[in-house]
Amino acid sequence: MTSLHSVPKLPAGWLGVIGGMGPLATSDFLKKLTLSTQAQTDQQHIPTLLFGDCTTPDRTASVLGSGPSPLPQLLAAVDFLNAAGVQVIAMPCNSAHCWYQDLVDRAQMPFLHIVDSSAQQVLARNPQARTIGVLSTEGTARMGIYTQRLTALHLQPMTPMNEDFTDLISPGIAFVKAGDLEAGGALLRKAAYRLFDRGADAVILGCTEIPLGMEHELETDPLRFIDSTQALVEATLKHLR
Amino acid sequence: MTSLHSVPKLPAGWLGVIGGMGPLATSDFLKKLTLSTQAQTDQQHIPTLLFGDCTTPDRTASVLGSGPSPLPQLLAAVDFLNAAGVQVIAMPCNSAHCWYQDLVDRAQMPFLHIVDSSAQQVLARNPQARTIGVLSTEGTARMGIYTQRLTALHLQPMTPMNEDFTDLISPGIAFVKAGDLEAGGALLRKAAYRLFDRGADAVILGCTEIPLGMEHELETDPLRFIDSTQALVEATLKHLR
Repeated sequence: MTSLHSVPKLPAGWLGVIGGMGPLATSDFLKKLTLSTQAQTDQQHIPTLLFGDCTTPDRTASVLGSGPSPLPQLLAAVDFLNAAGVQVIAMPCNSAHCWYQDLVDRAQMPFLHIVDSSAQQVLARNPQARTIGVLSTEGTARMGIYTQRLTALHLQPMTPMNEDFTDLISPGIAFVKAGDLEAGGALLRKAAYRLFDRGADAVILGCTEIPLGMEHELETDPLRFIDSTQALVEATLKHLR
Repeated sequence: MTSLHSVPKLPAGWLGVIGGMGPLATSDFLKKLTLSTQAQTDQQHIPTLLFGDCTTPDRTASVLGSGPSPLPQLLAAVDFLNAAGVQVIAMPCNSAHCWYQDLVDRAQMPFLHIVDSSAQQVLARNPQARTIGVLSTEGTARMGIYTQRLTALHLQPMTPMNEDFTDLISPGIAFVKAGDLEAGGALLRKAAYRLFDRGADAVILGCTEIPLGMEHELETDPLRFIDSTQALVEATLKHLR
């Protein structure tokens, strides 16, 4: 991104979305946002500017030291939304929140945190739950962003075993990113049940690709399966209300 | 929109989407775009800037003379995408194409036409079809945009009866816009079968809300039901290839 061009500033009330990580998760966020908004007509919905740079480098590869940092492109997204003048920013990608502090420092408007939204969602939906499994990318787990926030809320976080990342979660997320929700869902479901077997009271689907493969569980068992995408949607609606 | 702000210009290859008309149809377009793209990783997908101004006035009300024109907000969307420097524009709303000429005159890049995309899709999927029913908003029908383009391709367009717009199509689309896909789908399906009863060989779902209520028909009978959203997706991918 080189030269600067002038754009008309947006009116109040626009949501800015940093998306494309991945693009299917972004469309899922926008769908859930629309279906969760109390509206009878188009005009009652939330005007939305999506900056969907799916070419942003892989977040987990960067955390694990095997790929470039996504930070420059994430900052470019914030700069774009700053210039456009959105009212609040949501980023439906858990792993990208490893760089949250740099992004929130750059943003000229509130920037919601998907991990805080998900943790709040556990308390709201299942206040009895104490041990909370977190199904996430290896990058999110390695950076401990769920662990810190769940502990601060006096909840006991539980992380998948190393071999579950390798054998189930990483390939499951890769299947979803390649558009095969069925193959992805089968692996991710198995990883979730391993957390329940180890004593989790609820499991956060803490990567926005994961809910796409586990729609059945989210529909039939909403107390035990917490959808981080839906949690961010509800935090967005609460903020803009 | 008053003051001017500078946004960093995007690199080559970005798709600009004028959306929010309605927002559920926009998320459906983005989902179908992602699932139709040959990609194994996020980075192989198409970077997308969505200008989703769902507050744009209702297109059919404007055509029927009972509401303000959407044109100023549609032009603002084009101005925004011009400033950002997207490579091509897609607008997943058939009725908004009543103002296509003004928009394409303003755009500094190619602007795909959803009606052309849908007509081409009929030829590609069902080359035997001669009489083509068009299930659209009353605004799209009144402006004759499908009629002109289908006739130019030597196809025989068929428009719903006036009472079908009043009793089935307009309330069906309103149900989808309010998030009730089941109630909307029941009315829209009935309107589609009235076109088949009158002799249509295929029916274009020529309003991007309609495919959301008719997923079953699109899956089971893809020769006779043509999805204008999917048609625009395929035209977009063809353009960017």
